[in-house]
Parts: sequence; C-alpha cells; structure tokens
Amino acid sequence: MAVVTRVCFRGGSVGEWRVLRIQTLGGSPLEPVASLNRQERPGPADDGAVWSLHGVTSHQRYVYGREKLQLEAEQAGLGRPKATRAALIPIAKSPAWWDLPQDERRAIFEERSHHISASFKYLPAIARRLYHARELGGPFDFLTWFEFAPEHAGLFDELVAMLRGTEEWRYVEREVDIRLSRSIGPVNR
Amino acid sequence: MAVVTRVCFRGGSVGEWRVLRIQTLGGSPLEPVASLNRQERPGPADDGAVWSLHGVTSHQRYVYGREKLQLEAEQAGLGRPKATRAALIPIAKSPAWWDLPQDERRAIFEERSHHISASFKYLPAIARRLYHARELGGPFDFLTWFEFAPEHAGLFDELVAMLRGTEEWRYVEREVDIRLSRSIGPVNR
Repeated sequence: MAVVTRVCFRGGSVGEWRVLRIQTLGGSPLEPVASLNRQERPGPADDGAVWSLHGVTSHQRYVYGREKLQLEAEQAGLGRPKATRAALIPIAKSPAWWDLPQDERRAIFEERSHHISASFKYLPAIARRLYHARELGGPFDFLTWFEFAPEHAGLFDELVAMLRGTEEWRYVEREVDIRLSRSIGPVNR
Repeated sequence: MAVVTRVCFRGGSVGEWRVLRIQTLGGSPLEPVASLNRQERPGPADDGAVWSLHGVTSHQRYVYGREKLQLEAEQAGLGRPKATRAALIPIAKSPAWWDLPQDERRAIFEERSHHISASFKYLPAIARRLYHARELGGPFDFLTWFEFAPEHAGLFDELVAMLRGTEEWRYVEREVDIRLSRSIGPVNR
C-alpha cells in the first residue's frame, strides 16, 4: 500500500478487539489492557486509552517487482467476517540494522531470511498490514497487524516462530505480541 | 545518517539564512519569505513563521555498501564557516513513483539516473543533508538541504540541472528551489 494513511492503535478498557494475551519477547513491555482499537481515521484525542501507538502505511522497502505481483495476487484484505482473531506485534530494530546499506538489509531480509518467500505459505489465510512508526518518533519502528480465522491460529503461531528464527530477527530489539479476538463487528476495513 | 532527528524549516521575516530567491519548478509555490531557519531541536510553536516544513533524518533507502563507504569518505558536514550559501529544495514525487517496487526504484534512481555516482563529482564542495517528510503527512516527500561556499554556486547549479534531466526527475511533481545566504554565524551544525 503506497498511500500514506495514518493509524492509531489505542489500548484501554473498551474497543473492537478484546485482548487474549500480551507477551513481551524483547525489550520493555506495554502496560496490560483489556481491549484494543485500530483506527485509520483521526479519532478523539482523549478517550481514556492507557497507551496509543501511531503509525502510517507507506511504500514497500524491500519487495521486488516479481514478489509484488505475487503478493498482490495471493494476499487477503482486512475485515473479512471470518477473521475474528488478530495480532498486533509492535517491533523495534537495533541501530546496527538501520545503519546497514540498502543491499545488505535486503540480503538479510529476503535472500538469507526469506521473509517474503517463506511467508507465501501463509497467504491468504493470514491477512497482514504493515504500519511504519520509526519516523514518527514513537517507541517502535513497525506496528505489524494480522487478521485470521480461529482455525488458523496455529498457522499464525508457526509463521511468527519461523520469522523469529531468522537472521533478520537478530536485529529486533523490542517485540510485544498482542493476541486479540473480535468483540464487535468490523468497523474499520 | 541512520538516526532519526527531527528538523523544522521556518520561513518568515527573521532567521539564520536570508532568502536570495525562491523558484517554483513544479507544483504549487511556497509563499515568499525574507528569511529561513533550519532547526534540529524543538523550537517555539508560535514564532511568527509564514510557513513551516517538518522532516526527519532517517536510514538510507537506495545506497549500497560500496557507495556508502565512498560517500562517508568524501562528503562534508554541515556548518563549515566557508559555506555561507545554502539551498532548501523541498520535493514531492508522484504516486506512480511510490507504487514502484524497490528494485525498480533503485534501477531508476541509480542504474539509469546515476543519482549517487554522478553526485560524487560535487563532493566535498557541496554538503548535503536529506530529510524525509512523506510519512509525517506534510506537503512534500523530501526536504533536501545543501551548503556550499559562494564560489561553488555555479557548481551547485550544474548539480541540480544534472539531476533535473534524469529519468528519476520525471517522477517529481512538486519542487521549490530556495537559495539562501547566511545572515548570522552558524548556530545549528
């Protein structure tokens, strides 16, 4: 998605998504909350949220032409009625990662970690949206969002375990894995 | 520069840099101002600026390893006492550019437009800093900043003319070229 669209994830006591569990895999945790909202429109500034994470959709940083075509053919959109489970996984990478030149980051990301090619197995069951947050000055570099049906929860566990075993993940300094279940109908597709 | 540092350029009636001329090369112009400040620290919210442009330094998007080493060896820093001329050139690229996959953007940027390799000729005379603005939601994608000595003003004209003739520049939709002369000593190196 090349268009820049702002998102705000608000953790608090009410929201479209009910929190099933929050697991901190690296770095400092996020304060526990019962619910989460993902909002792609400007929202009220003070809605009693315990924490807010801001991000933007942006252009793709590592995807090559042939991969882009395959992704567009195979990936699913957000808001599918059957996709009543979700995960928000905010991630921060190390200064060493950001200091690498583009060709070395691409080589680690895809040629050595197969981030794109190994993920095709999980499409279209797992729908995904990547929000960039590093340049907004927040505590994370990326806010990664996933939606899937309850019967694909195990497949999603397999996907994140696969990614966490890659060379790319050695550069991940902070990671919080928030699993969610839809508490009301989709309002923000 | 992989560190994320915020910058604010404020155009108004007072500032470190005196405006010599403002030329609009594409898209809508910026309101004429007499002076400009470049501030890499949070400044006062209301200082009578006519316009403000916000950006951040960030990691490099297209530079490969060998190019990074050569750039680090040859480029000059900002704030040199002799560099009493400057240019702020804010740029916005088209949606078609941002929708291209990474390999096609790199091919246009360097293999076909030689943005990196053809610029080495202008180092270290022209010092340069790139600020990213697209994901901050402002009117431009990039705020490009250059500093040079008065005797290199012709060399700088040659550099921007070279870039404007490239395939990459076909994707530039808005460009404003602001030439500046230092009115007081450097306060923000």
